[in-house]
Amino acid sequence: MAVRIQIDLSYDGTAFSGWAAQPGRRTVEEVLALAVGRVLRLAEPPRLTVAGRTDAGVHARGQVAHADVPEDAWAAATGAGPGTEAGRGANANAAGRVRWRLARALPPDVRVRGFAPAPDGFDARFSALWRRYSYRICDHPAAADPLRRHDTLWHPRCLDLAAMNAAAAALLGEHDFAAFCRRREGATTVRALRRLDWQRDAEGVAVASVVADAFCHNMVRALVGALLPVGEGSRAPDWPAAVLAAAVRDPAVRVVPPHGLCLEEVRYPEPGRLAERAALSRRVRD
Amino acid sequence: MAVRIQIDLSYDGTAFSGWAAQPGRRTVEEVLALAVGRVLRLAEPPRLTVAGRTDAGVHARGQVAHADVPEDAWAAATGAGPGTEAGRGANANAAGRVRWRLARALPPDVRVRGFAPAPDGFDARFSALWRRYSYRICDHPAAADPLRRHDTLWHPRCLDLAAMNAAAAALLGEHDFAAFCRRREGATTVRALRRLDWQRDAEGVAVASVVADAFCHNMVRALVGALLPVGEGSRAPDWPAAVLAAAVRDPAVRVVPPHGLCLEEVRYPEPGRLAERAALSRRVRD
Repeated sequence: MAVRIQIDLSYDGTAFSGWAAQPGRRTVEEVLALAVGRVLRLAEPPRLTVAGRTDAGVHARGQVAHADVPEDAWAAATGAGPGTEAGRGANANAAGRVRWRLARALPPDVRVRGFAPAPDGFDARFSALWRRYSYRICDHPAAADPLRRHDTLWHPRCLDLAAMNAAAAALLGEHDFAAFCRRREGATTVRALRRLDWQRDAEGVAVASVVADAFCHNMVRALVGALLPVGEGSRAPDWPAAVLAAAVRDPAVRVVPPHGLCLEEVRYPEPGRLAERAALSRRVRD
Repeated sequence: MAVRIQIDLSYDGTAFSGWAAQPGRRTVEEVLALAVGRVLRLAEPPRLTVAGRTDAGVHARGQVAHADVPEDAWAAATGAGPGTEAGRGANANAAGRVRWRLARALPPDVRVRGFAPAPDGFDARFSALWRRYSYRICDHPAAADPLRRHDTLWHPRCLDLAAMNAAAAALLGEHDFAAFCRRREGATTVRALRRLDWQRDAEGVAVASVVADAFCHNMVRALVGALLPVGEGSRAPDWPAAVLAAAVRDPAVRVVPPHGLCLEEVRYPEPGRLAERAALSRRVRD
């Protein structure tokens, strides 16, 4: 019997070659799988499934993953008998202790906020309703905070957020985002963009909030790259919508650097609807 | 003729052995002086005077320094004739250009927000009315943001901020802070503590705001270290005031690590009172 463990985590992507394991590279997937395997004393690191396969240099505050591990290994690590309520995580103290052990087994650039058996039907990737990313841009040297340089793009020209928001509004809804995606054979590039807007935070940094059911590769960074020239005044606010309508990669769209991007949140339906949502996502995506 | 240049700057203290130049160490003072000397084409780097001599690992968002440079060098760098209004910085465009050149000459962990001739009577150190520091503590693993680990102390036990604020209130006012200072021969340890309180920010991080006319060495980190056991419940809220009253270093007060500390702001009087304030500070401090 296996138990599915849900892992809620954050990471600073600076020193990682992204989420996905690659031979000879330091990746979040490998670092996390090794730590989970060690804490649960597994024969080998578990396979992980993740909500957002972040690229090299991209950060996460609200990443979610899952791993299927032998029930007796989980029970042994949490001090509860296999198949008991405690073994399924009802014992919050035991689950807390194993989360602390995992925290100690991880390097400081990865933090785990949750590590406990998942509700029935949960799939970190396919059960998700939507993902929310942020992108941070400091467009004035006087506001540049060296302590935030790892997660903020320094942009040498001032940005007109009202113009960028007008342009962004025209991209909302379900569209073929092929113009903003690196195409992959046999995979759809149709996505539902639910939110894309810019606001200044208390320090004057321009922060984009981007929400979609799912994102294809490079999509947020290409969307931000299409809005930047609008903010600078070198493109009209209707240009990004024209790029979208053309449905082919436009070389004029610059993909912005990864370090301004952060996966902030993954939203799942209520526990009773997790399996249903996963089945729907699989049908749509594959 | 020399012109006094005011430099407003921020830095990530992680990779610096503090502000003050030391042979063989990377310090903010040396990095900044070299960059200023290069941008202004000086024969040698200028001497710098700073508002807050931060220790190794301590950050700054609102640091202020000054340098006295030959008027003709400043005029040449800003493209204005010596002694003219433009030479004194009335030409905002020229001053903006030289600030940009300085920004390019500095590494990314030091940013300059202002670089322009200072008002008459200005002294970065002695004209200051007060300094404000912050200290960030994350006391719950679920709130630990790996992107802020460089400027936030991770503390393994939850803190009662109300108890810490009650203890802090008893320390306000003008006192001999010898109990919280590394003593220096011939220098007073009397300081006026104007503010010391804790609040949680939007992410749940406990942030102290500490304001005094000036601080002696290690003072903020020792004050925070005296309040931590109060927050944990292992000391009564009147303990820090008892330590203060004893007026000798108490080995039970742990000096907290530097990376949670940041110099946020230095406040100066209105331009007409800068020289008067500097004269007063010199009299009190020396």
